[in-house]
Amino acid sequence: MSEPEAAGDNVNNEENNPPESKTENKNEEEQPEPPKEMKAVVLAGFGGLKSVKVMNKPQPAVGEGEILIRVKACGLNFLDVMVRQGVIDSPPKTPFILGFECAGEVEGVGEGVTDVKVGDRVAALTEYKAWAELVSVPAKYVYSLPQGMEFQNAASMLMNYVVAYILVFDIGNIRSGQSVLVHSAGGGVGQAISQLCKTVSDVTLIGTASKHKHESIKDSFAHLLDHGVDYVQEIKKLSPEGVDIVLDCLYGDDANKGYNLLKPLGRYILYGSGNIVTGETKSFFSLAKSWWQVDKINPMKLFDENRSVSGFQLRHLLYQQGAHEYVRGVVNKVFKMWENGHIKPVVDSTWAFEDVPEAMQKLHDRKNVGKIILDPNMEPKPKPKLQTKGSKDKDKEKEKDGKAVGETAAGESTDAEKENKEGDSSAPSSAN
Amino acid sequence: MSEPEAAGDNVNNEENNPPESKTENKNEEEQPEPPKEMKAVVLAGFGGLKSVKVMNKPQPAVGEGEILIRVKACGLNFLDVMVRQGVIDSPPKTPFILGFECAGEVEGVGEGVTDVKVGDRVAALTEYKAWAELVSVPAKYVYSLPQGMEFQNAASMLMNYVVAYILVFDIGNIRSGQSVLVHSAGGGVGQAISQLCKTVSDVTLIGTASKHKHESIKDSFAHLLDHGVDYVQEIKKLSPEGVDIVLDCLYGDDANKGYNLLKPLGRYILYGSGNIVTGETKSFFSLAKSWWQVDKINPMKLFDENRSVSGFQLRHLLYQQGAHEYVRGVVNKVFKMWENGHIKPVVDSTWAFEDVPEAMQKLHDRKNVGKIILDPNMEPKPKPKLQTKGSKDKDKEKEKDGKAVGETAAGESTDAEKENKEGDSSAPSSAN
Repeated sequence: MSEPEAAGDNVNNEENNPPESKTENKNEEEQPEPPKEMKAVVLAGFGGLKSVKVMNKPQPAVGEGEILIRVKACGLNFLDVMVRQGVIDSPPKTPFILGFECAGEVEGVGEGVTDVKVGDRVAALTEYKAWAELVSVPAKYVYSLPQGMEFQNAASMLMNYVVAYILVFDIGNIRSGQSVLVHSAGGGVGQAISQLCKTVSDVTLIGTASKHKHESIKDSFAHLLDHGVDYVQEIKKLSPEGVDIVLDCLYGDDANKGYNLLKPLGRYILYGSGNIVTGETKSFFSLAKSWWQVDKINPMKLFDENRSVSGFQLRHLLYQQGAHEYVRGVVNKVFKMWENGHIKPVVDSTWAFEDVPEAMQKLHDRKNVGKIILDPNMEPKPKPKLQTKGSKDKDKEKEKDGKAVGETAAGESTDAEKENKEGDSSAPSSAN
Repeated sequence: MSEPEAAGDNVNNEENNPPESKTENKNEEEQPEPPKEMKAVVLAGFGGLKSVKVMNKPQPAVGEGEILIRVKACGLNFLDVMVRQGVIDSPPKTPFILGFECAGEVEGVGEGVTDVKVGDRVAALTEYKAWAELVSVPAKYVYSLPQGMEFQNAASMLMNYVVAYILVFDIGNIRSGQSVLVHSAGGGVGQAISQLCKTVSDVTLIGTASKHKHESIKDSFAHLLDHGVDYVQEIKKLSPEGVDIVLDCLYGDDANKGYNLLKPLGRYILYGSGNIVTGETKSFFSLAKSWWQVDKINPMKLFDENRSVSGFQLRHLLYQQGAHEYVRGVVNKVFKMWENGHIKPVVDSTWAFEDVPEAMQKLHDRKNVGKIILDPNMEPKPKPKLQTKGSKDKDKEKEKDGKAVGETAAGESTDAEKENKEGDSSAPSSAN
């Protein structure tokens, strides 16, 4: 919203104080005392990458019905980038600890918790606060891991596969012989969608992704299209009747395009957050533009055309709408599919807390293939000492904090610009 | 659209010429010659019941890829009432033979037809022309009957159960533990929906229907509500979270009510035609009002609320959108369920062609419980000779043709008025 404020309490300068120096001394009591601290990834204010700080924060207490988890792996999602930019509804007050999913070991259980015990291996869908060494989570959002599932596997599967499962099966109701268009085919959800669709016979998968990703995901999709080109024409060449399901995380003009690509009885499903996150601080404008671009639909038009339009947002479902029992059922089904070898999460890369800005940039630039994982115990990348920011600074709104991002991310943001431009060029004149 | 024109060729005065006098003499050749005639239910012009005439028409020729069916039973649907009133898009020119479904014996096959042979027992979803002694139908709309299925069974199942199956399973994607709200619960589709839902464990069925029907359909629905009362409040009492699926054939204000009753991940599905057909000639106004009353939906609102909105119309799907292979698959599944004893069509009543106006009035007034069947070989009801129209004529737009309707229908239209008024009283102030 505004520029990041001065970061709050307990700020660690992540460059001078490597994480080893943190004051962690837990091995006495399960109930952590106020002075005990933990490392956490904190959003100091809504905005760019420099608002993301690694800090020491008080260890959480375990409330009634809660489970304290010693975090071993966290998932990074587009939702986190949206939160950072403040483009979600009712965001919490900054500063707060980021992160919506993690996996780890149970370190304590609150009153009334009977399903898990200390030492159990679990994963959790938390409402913020997951990117920390410890997190206390209401038991309703905590799921026991199947035997043999590593923490990284769990953190890479939980949100992506739950979202993908609900999209593909419960909302999409995919059936044998049908076709699916998936945007951001190379991302974590895109990869999960592909794997879940492949558990159904004779499903045709069409994905859009940046050209540079095509080689690495070519086995996941029957047809890969560059989102920058006129993918609607390409799809009409592949399948003149259109597709049965469109899974759209992009909004805006892609919503109308996707709707118009539907076969009779086709389902257009809007989920996730892609197009909203286009620039580092242009987000509110983008959001408004997306709302404006998406055509409103009279249900009687759907009646005329035999079509469905759906929206899906896990965060609302779980935390505002109270569907935790339903989500637990989906988690169980996903874990069962993993146990049966039907699905296998793709991990793009693993990052230290200190390197979250770079990891976020990679996600933002859609450079990842599969899931981006954070590991609280991982050593951060060595930071280069040269403070020159490189050559590209024509876009004032681009991330400029060389300290957090480093030279690799700076090089990547050039590609990001290119990609954004490509995306824009595919939009018709209604874009301005 | 306009007042019924003078009826076309071969008009039979159904009162003076009972059907026995029709010139039917088929037992020589399969290929009918021009002079051969058959009895058919013809719409002479769009409008009220008096536009519906029983006439002699030339027997149809069997074109390439067509199947000539000797009709034994026809289904009457709300769609037929809409057609009569002219409230469908691209209606054919009057006069034409009414009717969208029938069952009977194959009397001839055109060139290229290999799947059925003369003498086979079949059912068909025809684009008009089904209400006749003979109809020639493209083979793609003809379905072989399972052994033991009577023609009346077939005619009562075909359209209703195909519609219900697609609504409940393919669009609604119903699952164990879910709840469904069905309007017009006592009609043919309502009864089919109930039976199909009951093949899934632990589904809660809530139906709205006129009070006088509740007793006869009380076994089909867990909860029956009077559509005339504030059913939204009643449902919220039964299930404060709402329902998972709303199957709405009423449009207008019921669409908004239905949408707002949805649970998270709920599906609102608009189908059929109920509210449009409210008065005998008020239909265009009703249609416009329905369009206006239904809130337009931004897909991003669906995203916020985790909801789906769908529309379904079998006629478009089958005849305009070419989904005959898909529909054949559904017919096969429905027939298989019948063979397995999972479903059993409910027949409300069977009528002679000459009594179609009275049968239509019964459907219009929602007096039927289950399917209304027409039988080309049935004797018409004896008509009373008294021509006094009874006492009720304050509504000029009500059916006034005593010749076609008879005194029973006149009595029923009084109830119909009452019901319409009740329906209106349940609408909020947005109705004007």
